[in-house]
Amino acid sequence: MPEAESRRLTKHHIAVAQNASGRSLNVPIYKISDKRPGPTVYIQSSIHGAEVQGNVVIYHLLQALKKTQINGEIILVPNCNPVGTNIKAGEYTMGRFDPVNGTNWNRGYFYDEQQVRDFASSVDQATSSDDIKSEFRGLLRSSIEAKLSQPWGLGLAQQLNLKLQKLAVNADIVLDLHNGPVSTRHVYIPEYAKQAAHQFSIPHCIFIPNVFAGALDEACFCTWWSLQDRLEERFGRGFDFGVEAFTLEMGSQEVIDFAEGEKDALGILGYLACKGVLDTQQFKPANMQRLGVSLANYKTLFTDFGGMVEYCVKPGQKVKQGDVMARVLNIDNLDDEQAVRTVIAPCDLIPILHFPSASVLSGTQLYKCFTNYVEL
Amino acid sequence: MPEAESRRLTKHHIAVAQNASGRSLNVPIYKISDKRPGPTVYIQSSIHGAEVQGNVVIYHLLQALKKTQINGEIILVPNCNPVGTNIKAGEYTMGRFDPVNGTNWNRGYFYDEQQVRDFASSVDQATSSDDIKSEFRGLLRSSIEAKLSQPWGLGLAQQLNLKLQKLAVNADIVLDLHNGPVSTRHVYIPEYAKQAAHQFSIPHCIFIPNVFAGALDEACFCTWWSLQDRLEERFGRGFDFGVEAFTLEMGSQEVIDFAEGEKDALGILGYLACKGVLDTQQFKPANMQRLGVSLANYKTLFTDFGGMVEYCVKPGQKVKQGDVMARVLNIDNLDDEQAVRTVIAPCDLIPILHFPSASVLSGTQLYKCFTNYVEL
Amino acid sequence: MPEAESRRLTKHHIAVAQNASGRSLNVPIYKISDKRPGPTVYIQSSIHGAEVQGNVVIYHLLQALKKTQINGEIILVPNCNPVGTNIKAGEYTMGRFDPVNGTNWNRGYFYDEQQVRDFASSVDQATSSDDIKSEFRGLLRSSIEAKLSQPWGLGLAQQLNLKLQKLAVNADIVLDLHNGPVSTRHVYIPEYAKQAAHQFSIPHCIFIPNVFAGALDEACFCTWWSLQDRLEERFGRGFDFGVEAFTLEMGSQEVIDFAEGEKDALGILGYLACKGVLDTQQFKPANMQRLGVSLANYKTLFTDFGGMVEYCVKPGQKVKQGDVMARVLNIDNLDDEQAVRTVIAPCDLIPILHFPSASVLSGTQLYKCFTNYVEL
Amino acid sequence: MPEAESRRLTKHHIAVAQNASGRSLNVPIYKISDKRPGPTVYIQSSIHGAEVQGNVVIYHLLQALKKTQINGEIILVPNCNPVGTNIKAGEYTMGRFDPVNGTNWNRGYFYDEQQVRDFASSVDQATSSDDIKSEFRGLLRSSIEAKLSQPWGLGLAQQLNLKLQKLAVNADIVLDLHNGPVSTRHVYIPEYAKQAAHQFSIPHCIFIPNVFAGALDEACFCTWWSLQDRLEERFGRGFDFGVEAFTLEMGSQEVIDFAEGEKDALGILGYLACKGVLDTQQFKPANMQRLGVSLANYKTLFTDFGGMVEYCVKPGQKVKQGDVMARVLNIDNLDDEQAVRTVIAPCDLIPILHFPSASVLSGTQLYKCFTNYVEL
Repeated sequence: MPEAESRRLTKHHIAVAQNASGRSLNVPIYKISDKRPGPTVYIQSSIHGAEVQGNVVIYHLLQALKKTQINGEIILVPNCNPVGTNIKAGEYTMGRFDPVNGTNWNRGYFYDEQQVRDFASSVDQATSSDDIKSEFRGLLRSSIEAKLSQPWGLGLAQQLNLKLQKLAVNADIVLDLHNGPVSTRHVYIPEYAKQAAHQFSIPHCIFIPNVFAGALDEACFCTWWSLQDRLEERFGRGFDFGVEAFTLEMGSQEVIDFAEGEKDALGILGYLACKGVLDTQQFKPANMQRLGVSLANYKTLFTDFGGMVEYCVKPGQKVKQGDVMARVLNIDNLDDEQAVRTVIAPCDLIPILHFPSASVLSGTQLYKCFTNYVEL
Repeated sequence: MPEAESRRLTKHHIAVAQNASGRSLNVPIYKISDKRPGPTVYIQSSIHGAEVQGNVVIYHLLQALKKTQINGEIILVPNCNPVGTNIKAGEYTMGRFDPVNGTNWNRGYFYDEQQVRDFASSVDQATSSDDIKSEFRGLLRSSIEAKLSQPWGLGLAQQLNLKLQKLAVNADIVLDLHNGPVSTRHVYIPEYAKQAAHQFSIPHCIFIPNVFAGALDEACFCTWWSLQDRLEERFGRGFDFGVEAFTLEMGSQEVIDFAEGEKDALGILGYLACKGVLDTQQFKPANMQRLGVSLANYKTLFTDFGGMVEYCVKPGQKVKQGDVMARVLNIDNLDDEQAVRTVIAPCDLIPILHFPSASVLSGTQLYKCFTNYVEL
Repeated sequence: MPEAESRRLTKHHIAVAQNASGRSLNVPIYKISDKRPGPTVYIQSSIHGAEVQGNVVIYHLLQALKKTQINGEIILVPNCNPVGTNIKAGEYTMGRFDPVNGTNWNRGYFYDEQQVRDFASSVDQATSSDDIKSEFRGLLRSSIEAKLSQPWGLGLAQQLNLKLQKLAVNADIVLDLHNGPVSTRHVYIPEYAKQAAHQFSIPHCIFIPNVFAGALDEACFCTWWSLQDRLEERFGRGFDFGVEAFTLEMGSQEVIDFAEGEKDALGILGYLACKGVLDTQQFKPANMQRLGVSLANYKTLFTDFGGMVEYCVKPGQKVKQGDVMARVLNIDNLDDEQAVRTVIAPCDLIPILHFPSASVLSGTQLYKCFTNYVEL
Repeated sequence: MPEAESRRLTKHHIAVAQNASGRSLNVPIYKISDKRPGPTVYIQSSIHGAEVQGNVVIYHLLQALKKTQINGEIILVPNCNPVGTNIKAGEYTMGRFDPVNGTNWNRGYFYDEQQVRDFASSVDQATSSDDIKSEFRGLLRSSIEAKLSQPWGLGLAQQLNLKLQKLAVNADIVLDLHNGPVSTRHVYIPEYAKQAAHQFSIPHCIFIPNVFAGALDEACFCTWWSLQDRLEERFGRGFDFGVEAFTLEMGSQEVIDFAEGEKDALGILGYLACKGVLDTQQFKPANMQRLGVSLANYKTLFTDFGGMVEYCVKPGQKVKQGDVMARVLNIDNLDDEQAVRTVIAPCDLIPILHFPSASVLSGTQLYKCFTNYVEL
């Protein structure tokens, strides 16, 4: 690449694990900046190994960013889980969890509610918002480093998570690119950043409460939101550290689609323009219908019986209460009226994703659905 | 069901294996007949556990056959591998091989070339063709039983195969219903039964030589074709025992589709009508384009590098030499011209199936393709 | 069996799941009683599919109990997870978690702290302890049933857990039989039932706080201990509902050993005698050394690097700080002094279990160890 | 290392595959020589990923060879299958076959009987044995290279095998280090090199016919033995190209044991001394009992039923006809006399290895046994 470009754009690798051969497993880190003031953006993809489309999105982001002026800095970490990507079991990739112990690769990030409270109590009234932010970032970084260096060691998934979180610790905007099984594009938006629903160009938005369950987006927004709340309680005035974090689900797992990835990238660039990172003339959110739902109304439909399943409704399609959502073939009763059982929609809904295999045990998560959704 | 129907149609189960809980794993066997003379037909599905669409085809066959007069008898064995169907690894079914030892579930059927030769040598010149057929069937059955009862035991896949083969030993027509990964409908036709290409309603036909590699169709047709050849050599006149066997690939694995299954069933009924089992006025082969290829021209395209793959051509689509068949994203080079490598068609071809995952290691079978194909 | 015995001992099965063939997966339930007053005892084994030795223990328990008078009733549920037992991946059993989604089979039992509080608030001062216990059991049972019958369904592991918990809901004593990877015999004992350490005949005891993390023993003891605490707070007097629950680790997974299982059974019978279920003349705890540790001092040693590991110390063996616990072969450095790295004991300790494979990634849990242990 | 040593001993890596991240997977190659005339020796380990002890043996070989004068050259390739080593499924390594397609990692080496015949026919009567050997090696190498570079590509396991075989193509002695599941030390010896049984220090020897089934040892010895036979047929005089190849089974898989590995290495050094590679004063075969069996008498005992198994006899132990070899617990019959079924020795035998898991399906290979063995 030309020298000027190469100064804007750098690449290095970090080792996040070692395999059973004793070799390091590396993650590539692309950074791009014009040394202009602005937010720090961190975008990673494929923490779940089979969810690969985010890598294409990052590819298209890089192509666009190479030709665009940036305010702030953008850090892009494709294929951030080299362990998960490489776990084959049969033809598919079994990349959602560590095959040794079942640990979800997306549940070991750092968040310490007590630390937030203690820090908030210790802040001097006179400290500026910027200094508070900077000081607390230092504390977060050293806490993560301390966890990573404890003498008895740490589990693989958690090590991976913490090494990635260190890369994101200075970010104001964190985007974690995922995929569903067979899925629409949808996005998880924390309640306190609801306006982002109009800044992304994603048709289905799930609003989630400020609760930590281990994922990267939660680790980021819980930390800063809680800190804001604690400081507001204490000093009686509002704080806004301007940190946002989202999990974006870019369609179906086990799919690479360059054309769709280009659209996905364009949507993210539109969001970044809204946040002041890019030129708002060049990139804008799409003019489109957006549907929103609270997490409590984003429901999972399990099957009560095992068998072979036809998925009768497509992700994104409006379904009426009582409609047939799935047919289950019962191979021991092909000769009678029990041959085909049906799974019925318990209410009006929109399926957002469905299970990717035709063979299911009882208790399989067949669909995840929007219920009681609203147009945004 | 009404009594008359129930006399035509019977169902029972046989145990083909025991699981680690010590419980029997059963296979359902449906038999339907009007006690009229005609061929015996044996149809099984899902010997590979993830290849489930054949079960829907058998469901639709049963619905049609319940209302249709049959010459001969039809034996239907859906979900014939209850072990393979139930091997989950991640969300998908890892059903092509025994997860304990890698044994393909479709390679342990019985065929003994030497036994055919010995039997052919022993036949009396005066014996009628029917008596030869009947006598040799008895020999086959007892050979299979002897293998199954040897004192040191037998491997699981082979036990399963032989127990199924015993069900098929009297059949004149054997259809083994499979699926490809992401696949067109296609059929394997032994060279000596080439005319069947026009009797099925399947667009892509692969003509295979009379060679045994362990599969059910081969075990059936090799046996009888070899016997015919040996007897012809010996007595200088032609023999035709009328035994045919085929592997039918009913589209993609991990898919249940009732509407497509009804069409698949109709095609099989058309073939059965050609063979005298059903009324030729009621069921006919479709009027359609059929393409054929010799096995030597049915080629596998492997990738030389690992990475994340977009499949750029669809199964069934005509592709020109030099066309891009796949793009492979290289996550360590997203910033330069090596970011995307392409896999090119080595000659004019039609992809018949492709690998179902976007993540591949080097040496993965990306596509299987028709080359030098002809219209039939 | 003779009629008198058969009246004492009954067996039935319940379906806990359906597999992808649509067949029910059953669990056997053995009940044995002399209709004499006494505690109800619930013992299950193999909730983790590869942890099979508990089944042998239950076999030996049954042999002994057939010849012994019982006060109360004993419910024995061997092989309580017919899904997990049958998940093979390679030669071994991958039975700790659902291979579809990574869910640990032992984390979905029911416990509702708020329900305990609400119930405690609603109890009438005059109600007898027995009536409180009976009423609360009814509430637990109906809560579990409500969860099992919710309209959107429930995940497989949780369904399994709740169906088993229903069997245990009347029990005063709950024993959940597990195994470690390569492991000593050890037992998890809730802090409030510390005296049980002397009633079992198990050399290594881990004392755990009254905290619910999803397992069966916790679900049982947290519920009743919390209720006791709430009632004591409210009424200012002690309550003891006499409910105890333990997880017993009967040595190593993937091992069936009849002789050891007989000893394990004898130890459990000794405990049951202490609890008044059996004759204390006939069965007694062993006279032996017992070591105890708090959960905080039961530590996991992870490896920082991947490679091929020799486990240099045996489960149960006393190890000094600085001793070599493992050697890791580095195949890229066989020619120099980096060929073998060592993992060192960070303090004096007793390894209780170690990882069962010689090939490890970084972040693998090599050992779990007693530190700061005491003789009981 | 000191310079003189480093000249004797070199190390480099070759890439044998690429993973789904697009990264190369490398194999280390250690070569050691004093530039003195003598045989070329090729030793590899861990073509099956869970069979790791051979890596320790190579480590100890290197330690010894660093201090010993060598006639010829020794090539050591530990951990020769970086794909297989890294396939975890649960805690164990599923390394015997490609998890994508079930292909055994040890069945894709090159051998072409027709090529041997054609070459033998083309040899000029006057050519020296050395020149024939050298010319044929060139032909082998170019055949392997041609297979590796064919335009449609090649499967992963076969690519791996051929890249390794290229490293071994000049070798006079080829040792492929494996492990059994739970196993004694044993060795496969081709019939035409029977004397080697006394040169190794391995208690159990299996004599195998000159038949190719895909493994490395077979690929080597079949080639050269066949060539000798064809040339002898043609010219009426004996040829001996001095090529030997063996599969050595160094105990149980999933075990690293440095002390045992040192003994294993010493045994190999004794063999190499017999072959003129090392000083016969320094290294000698052990004085020990050796038992031999023909392949036809090396029998597999399968179980007819599934369940939970206690292995009652140890590898290496003499067993009498009728002795109990295994007990299988039947969890549905713990209350009656069917609770425990037994697997009986069908004749006098020595178990050499047994299955490593306590949970088995019907048709599992419980034991492999010497029958009709002889003392050598």
